[in-house]
Amino acid sequence: MELLSQQAVFDGWLRRYRHHSESTGTEMVFAVFLPPAVAAARMPVLYWLSGLTCTDENFCQKAGAFRLAAKLGLAIVCPDTSPRGLDLPGEHEEYDLGSGAGFYVNATEAPWSGHYRMYDYVTDELPSLVEAMLPVSADKGIAGHSMGGHGALIAALKNPGQYQSVSAFAPIVHPSAVPWGRKAFRAYLGPDETQWAEYDATLLVIDAKERLPILIDQGSKDAFLTEQLQPERFQAACQSVDHPLTLRMHPGYDHSYYFIASFIDDHLRFHAEALGLATG
Amino acid sequence: MELLSQQAVFDGWLRRYRHHSESTGTEMVFAVFLPPAVAAARMPVLYWLSGLTCTDENFCQKAGAFRLAAKLGLAIVCPDTSPRGLDLPGEHEEYDLGSGAGFYVNATEAPWSGHYRMYDYVTDELPSLVEAMLPVSADKGIAGHSMGGHGALIAALKNPGQYQSVSAFAPIVHPSAVPWGRKAFRAYLGPDETQWAEYDATLLVIDAKERLPILIDQGSKDAFLTEQLQPERFQAACQSVDHPLTLRMHPGYDHSYYFIASFIDDHLRFHAEALGLATG
Repeated sequence: MELLSQQAVFDGWLRRYRHHSESTGTEMVFAVFLPPAVAAARMPVLYWLSGLTCTDENFCQKAGAFRLAAKLGLAIVCPDTSPRGLDLPGEHEEYDLGSGAGFYVNATEAPWSGHYRMYDYVTDELPSLVEAMLPVSADKGIAGHSMGGHGALIAALKNPGQYQSVSAFAPIVHPSAVPWGRKAFRAYLGPDETQWAEYDATLLVIDAKERLPILIDQGSKDAFLTEQLQPERFQAACQSVDHPLTLRMHPGYDHSYYFIASFIDDHLRFHAEALGLATG
Repeated sequence: MELLSQQAVFDGWLRRYRHHSESTGTEMVFAVFLPPAVAAARMPVLYWLSGLTCTDENFCQKAGAFRLAAKLGLAIVCPDTSPRGLDLPGEHEEYDLGSGAGFYVNATEAPWSGHYRMYDYVTDELPSLVEAMLPVSADKGIAGHSMGGHGALIAALKNPGQYQSVSAFAPIVHPSAVPWGRKAFRAYLGPDETQWAEYDATLLVIDAKERLPILIDQGSKDAFLTEQLQPERFQAACQSVDHPLTLRMHPGYDHSYYFIASFIDDHLRFHAEALGLATG
């Protein structure tokens, strides 16, 4: 891992690293917030998966999360949203496909297969690397926004026992059924929709091997609510199998990082409690 | 005033307005954070002046200030850093002159005079407009970063009684004596350095009519500390006239918004106390 930068923030450190990824076959950059060292114990990690068009930087700059994370003793790792530095056909033409839009799946279709393997990257390769190289424990939570909310939900639902907590802001809960998800899944996974079900939280939750409680926040003025997000479909699926879900609708809030910033402290406390940190 | 956008944040509102400015002869855009209405009383306002290359948006997105401002009942107004939409010779060629670099002075030299009048804009026109059009009181504080820290200091020092409080992050305290300031002042104010003294905090503080306490935070790893900032020169000037200054050096912190975010709550409480708000 190559350290690209280190900045002091809230008496902790924000670092950006670059490393070669086996999953994507490219260099990948990620950011990590390390709280001030408060004890000899290794810190648990919250993985944050960002939405369409984002890099590792958006959450760090705009979420306002480090103030409370520093107090809680919670590390935060922010991966990128796709491989970079390739030049695949069509990769950089649309904001919702290709670069910045990896959708946290392992692509099986050309030209994406072999590189667009963000599912393996965020659920396996990156945590292994982080736990080997940084002063963190193996305890982890996962959260995300929009496309990254989808990523967080499927990561937890597909890996029972791996995460102590999961939450999302305005997630794409049912990608097989909405335009963003259908476009991406058709490109990355091909036309056979049975393959899509492997990455669809609303379908995965039905047979989930673990009933890990889920926290979702959603703004009522989110411009994508009706067409792309539809949290009520996930809520209905959870109810059908008694999967514990707290879905909070927030009147007036939109899809932006101002919405995330307004409620990130609740999510940090939610994860910290599940990870055994003192939240008083 | 034309409302460009409104977003919910921390139960308050972030609005962006566009209006015609008499000071600059252009359209100007500013942002305002309005806390949730907690009382019938009109709210005091903190004016935030940004640094080189910034617009009204940087502070709003990156400072993490609205969480505490919402609790305190403190409105925050963020002007732009220069006129926009002109195409003066050389205006867009360098990051530290022209657009994004108004330096909060009233330019007297061609081609800037008549438009680059950011001093009048931020100290007179904008507060008058804000107080006439928004549910705020006439009580105000002023703060800023880097070039905007310079702006905040001179605004307070040149207008006794107008501000209840002033603070700065990594301000350019002595622009007449450092490269950023000398370049801008020569362009905007001409070669006569006696004119520059009218906009130089380290010179202005000597004869200030009001001894308003000043809070300055500065990172020790700020890449601009030695050449452009030199807070010790302002500190010496304050000491020579017993002007109350709290200068805090923070080991490890740089010039970025991560530094600002780490200490913005201290500044908000500093202003809130001076403005008569409950800070408990």
